[in-house]
Amino acid sequence: MKKTSAVLLALVAATHVLPAAAQFAKPEDAIKYRKSALSVMAHHFGRVAGMASGKIPFDPKAVAEDAAHAEYVSKLPWAGFVPGTDKGDTRAKVEIWTDKSKFDEYSGKLQRELGKLTLAAKAGNLDGIKTAVNATGSVCKSCHDDFRTK
Amino acid sequence: MKKTSAVLLALVAATHVLPAAAQFAKPEDAIKYRKSALSVMAHHFGRVAGMASGKIPFDPKAVAEDAAHAEYVSKLPWAGFVPGTDKGDTRAKVEIWTDKSKFDEYSGKLQRELGKLTLAAKAGNLDGIKTAVNATGSVCKSCHDDFRTK
Repeated sequence: MKKTSAVLLALVAATHVLPAAAQFAKPEDAIKYRKSALSVMAHHFGRVAGMASGKIPFDPKAVAEDAAHAEYVSKLPWAGFVPGTDKGDTRAKVEIWTDKSKFDEYSGKLQRELGKLTLAAKAGNLDGIKTAVNATGSVCKSCHDDFRTK
Repeated sequence: MKKTSAVLLALVAATHVLPAAAQFAKPEDAIKYRKSALSVMAHHFGRVAGMASGKIPFDPKAVAEDAAHAEYVSKLPWAGFVPGTDKGDTRAKVEIWTDKSKFDEYSGKLQRELGKLTLAAKAGNLDGIKTAVNATGSVCKSCHDDFRTK
């Protein structure tokens, strides 16, 4: 009886108060969040890549802003990769959680490369921008190859 | 003939090079972008609001981070409100563009209120957080009432 009450209390508490570490009420919220953040990041990175390749006219102010936005937002998506959220409206492979250290390595490298990109873009250094765009794009590709279904 | 060539050249240029001001290749890209940015912002604001109301246990570090993320991302969605993008997968009303100064006033006020929220959260000032959460939520509501279909 005591044990049942404790379990019941815990259940009631769980529905009313989210633990600080659990940022998402439902798995689909976590999926929507990470996809949204990745999409915003990809937009700004794509703008920088477009300017680096000449597809978009180079604009020193815009390239610095887009790089800074991509770098900032690159800190965010990872909280959305909650264990068990490889089901639903997502292409995330279960390997994200079974080979988490590799996934974390990619996300860390992505953020570092975008940091370099922001510095190069702020300095208006087109060669530096191109190098960082290629390095960043290569991390995107490797991570998608390993951790996203086709 | 000369005029036709000029028009053709302009069309060719338009398909190959995006003007710096036009950030989105397609209307649906702009819609996806602004919805993604608003969604990321809403997630972090929701976390702060949850901590302010006690629904989520108050965590001084988390509240400051969530407020800063919401404030940063609140700068982004507006570029996605490209004229003519009230059609498609969106609830945006045409009034966003016909009453643009009012819409811009809301987006400016939102960013200022989130700036106050970040300061209050950094200072660990729960009363200040509550005040800024209410002010921010009130801007969200007014803007949605005026500019988003039910």
